[in-house]
Amino acid sequence: MSQLSVNHLLGIKYLTPDDIDLILETAKHFKEVINRPIKKVPSLRDITIANIFFENSTRTKLSFELAQKRLSADVISFSAAQSSVKKGETLIDTVNNILAMKVDMVVMRHAHAGAAHFLSQNVNATIINAGDGAHEHPTQALLDSFTIKEKLGSVAGKKVVIVGDILHSRVALSNIFALQMQGAEVRVCGPKTLIPKHIDSLNVKVETNLRKALEWCDVANMLRVQNERLDVSYFPSTREYAMQYGLTKELLDSLNKEIVIMHPGPINRGVEITSDIADSKQSVILEQVENGVAVRMAVIYLLASKIK
Amino acid sequence: MSQLSVNHLLGIKYLTPDDIDLILETAKHFKEVINRPIKKVPSLRDITIANIFFENSTRTKLSFELAQKRLSADVISFSAAQSSVKKGETLIDTVNNILAMKVDMVVMRHAHAGAAHFLSQNVNATIINAGDGAHEHPTQALLDSFTIKEKLGSVAGKKVVIVGDILHSRVALSNIFALQMQGAEVRVCGPKTLIPKHIDSLNVKVETNLRKALEWCDVANMLRVQNERLDVSYFPSTREYAMQYGLTKELLDSLNKEIVIMHPGPINRGVEITSDIADSKQSVILEQVENGVAVRMAVIYLLASKIK
Amino acid sequence: MSQLSVNHLLGIKYLTPDDIDLILETAKHFKEVINRPIKKVPSLRDITIANIFFENSTRTKLSFELAQKRLSADVISFSAAQSSVKKGETLIDTVNNILAMKVDMVVMRHAHAGAAHFLSQNVNATIINAGDGAHEHPTQALLDSFTIKEKLGSVAGKKVVIVGDILHSRVALSNIFALQMQGAEVRVCGPKTLIPKHIDSLNVKVETNLRKALEWCDVANMLRVQNERLDVSYFPSTREYAMQYGLTKELLDSLNKEIVIMHPGPINRGVEITSDIADSKQSVILEQVENGVAVRMAVIYLLASKIK
Repeated sequence: MSQLSVNHLLGIKYLTPDDIDLILETAKHFKEVINRPIKKVPSLRDITIANIFFENSTRTKLSFELAQKRLSADVISFSAAQSSVKKGETLIDTVNNILAMKVDMVVMRHAHAGAAHFLSQNVNATIINAGDGAHEHPTQALLDSFTIKEKLGSVAGKKVVIVGDILHSRVALSNIFALQMQGAEVRVCGPKTLIPKHIDSLNVKVETNLRKALEWCDVANMLRVQNERLDVSYFPSTREYAMQYGLTKELLDSLNKEIVIMHPGPINRGVEITSDIADSKQSVILEQVENGVAVRMAVIYLLASKIK
Repeated sequence: MSQLSVNHLLGIKYLTPDDIDLILETAKHFKEVINRPIKKVPSLRDITIANIFFENSTRTKLSFELAQKRLSADVISFSAAQSSVKKGETLIDTVNNILAMKVDMVVMRHAHAGAAHFLSQNVNATIINAGDGAHEHPTQALLDSFTIKEKLGSVAGKKVVIVGDILHSRVALSNIFALQMQGAEVRVCGPKTLIPKHIDSLNVKVETNLRKALEWCDVANMLRVQNERLDVSYFPSTREYAMQYGLTKELLDSLNKEIVIMHPGPINRGVEITSDIADSKQSVILEQVENGVAVRMAVIYLLASKIK
Repeated sequence: MSQLSVNHLLGIKYLTPDDIDLILETAKHFKEVINRPIKKVPSLRDITIANIFFENSTRTKLSFELAQKRLSADVISFSAAQSSVKKGETLIDTVNNILAMKVDMVVMRHAHAGAAHFLSQNVNATIINAGDGAHEHPTQALLDSFTIKEKLGSVAGKKVVIVGDILHSRVALSNIFALQMQGAEVRVCGPKTLIPKHIDSLNVKVETNLRKALEWCDVANMLRVQNERLDVSYFPSTREYAMQYGLTKELLDSLNKEIVIMHPGPINRGVEITSDIADSKQSVILEQVENGVAVRMAVIYLLASKIK
């Protein structure tokens, strides 16, 4: 059986195209599993996984927990608010303590870019990055690629625009890496203040006009306006943002072609996307969520097979 | 096998008397199960249930979780404080995202009356109402009926008084519906400020004098004084409430008959009920808690059988 | 098969030396289990355990939960912040409500000394004390003894110094009882303000000079400086504490002998212990954590066998 080239999932940038292929193929199998009446396989009864979330998250944490339970792994979870982190303990000490309880794998979300990588070099366990600051969110990019492939047959050759706050988005960065590695062309679209300066070096073109971006693309990935992350004002107002970068039915109808609409959630209805579009047939937002469980099962399963 | 007439448990008012009979009969079987050494049955290994609590709750959440585990269902739980709700997501989006992870059933507590009903019309899953505002708390009323039946042989023909803050109580409303549907006579007793104006339309008499109410009844259901819910002053003081509407040994002894004492918990000892009465043989408070697990197993089991 | 002399684990002071021997021997077996690929045994499929933590804790709660899962017990957990305790319910009512749901065993951490003992006399379940105020933390002392035995062959005849805030430490008190009962000699070392006045009555000598204490001992158990517990100033500053009572490489190197370094965690690196020492071969800090799961499995297993 094929194996991943890596022992951790720290970011898309550490994967090979073959790794991505293997994960997406394996996820296809697990998507079948979770659509059976009994959605469980006994594969990982000998694996204990700790979910350590230093940032709040509903969907990502639940998705990982469900993936783990459906693989029959033993699962322990905790969030920062309940943890010794408050008592001044270092990250490595916190994690090493959990590992000493015979934990094989750690899924971690952390506010600092590089936290997962740092951990992988300092503790003896398989690390899965569930989001590190504005850096990477690899399982999100993998589930996005899975969804595009399911919808359009392949990722190679497709044109994908990522719209919104690119500057603070780990979803954008992981998607750029994953899509390019699979042969897609990627552009970003958003207010100039929310486009990182180094974007050229990633071989990504910027389009500040949403209509032009949509005319060009096969897939539009609408990022969430993360009001809670913005501590300075990057755009005049939410309303003005919606007018310039919000996806509406009028805009889509005027294109004379069908494009696939994605969103990593949670949605701000009426801001980056109107309700009618979010709930339309073109939108694959809930498919993304479903595929998330299958892709995470695949990642966990493939990494676990490297432990044994 | 008999089936429920409904696909959701949104409130007692949507049930038929046959539905209630079926639930209570099924709960009898599950009460036997949870009193065996191995308290588990493998019935729902193919069902995944999400517990979504937008209001805090110890006993109801634990009771549902235990009921689910003892049916071998897969369970995920989260409370609002940890959720994307804070990020401005709509209720339907939050729940649809969870359902996209292949969840079959949602148990929800929510501060707004009608939230469970609204959800049942907008998402594709079985919904169980674990309390919606001051509206209904159907599993509480079912476990109360189960307990009365266990104690007195039947609900039909019995006289039940519900004492306390009727105005804000979903327990009171669900109990009125359930008891009347089974042929009991119901009265309410409490300060006038805490009796809803529409109570006549429910065919329920008001008795403001506790002694008279007790002289009349077979069962007294003492509601909790929910200090945390009262934002204006409905009665002069807790002390004065206790003097007028608190159940004491003196009062009970003076009745020359035995009545069954119920309380949905958590108890304010010395307010709506004195300690000696709460712990007396007449009190069935802990039986109610035990029966709660059995009744919730029955509800979940019967609704799950309608999915397959 | 041997049995414990007690039905609860409330404190080391209630155990006999034979009890401690039995727990440590049983833990040896479970340490083998958790080092197998499949770390689970089906022993307690008929036991339901509630973890009730009225004080926050990462490692102790996770350690108990893992121990319970690896024994295949049914587990429910809640922390005070989510509980009815906020609604003014008494401790006994909270626990009795949980027990009414057919729970066999309660693991409780509570801020008040004596809470576990009080509970054991007032509810009908097996109680395990996971820390009660500044009183006892028996499983910590047992895992410490297990670790010393593993490292030095026996506890009997060994010299152990406990360094730091003895006054507020349940770890210190439980260790003093456990070590003396097994024939070790115990001294304490720390600023006079942090040594309890009654320490003589426990047959424990005080050494205020850390170097002298280390020259004397085989094992040094370095307690955490619990800044969050100190509401008045017991020592001038953390920095001054570190200079007088912090364990450093220089100090250890100057001893011309090897001593075993223990710490109950979480560590304040650079305060009670420097990083190089915490991570050195002499330190058994992570072994303590690993042994914690095995010892807790043993305690739960042995107490459960007294229920049946």
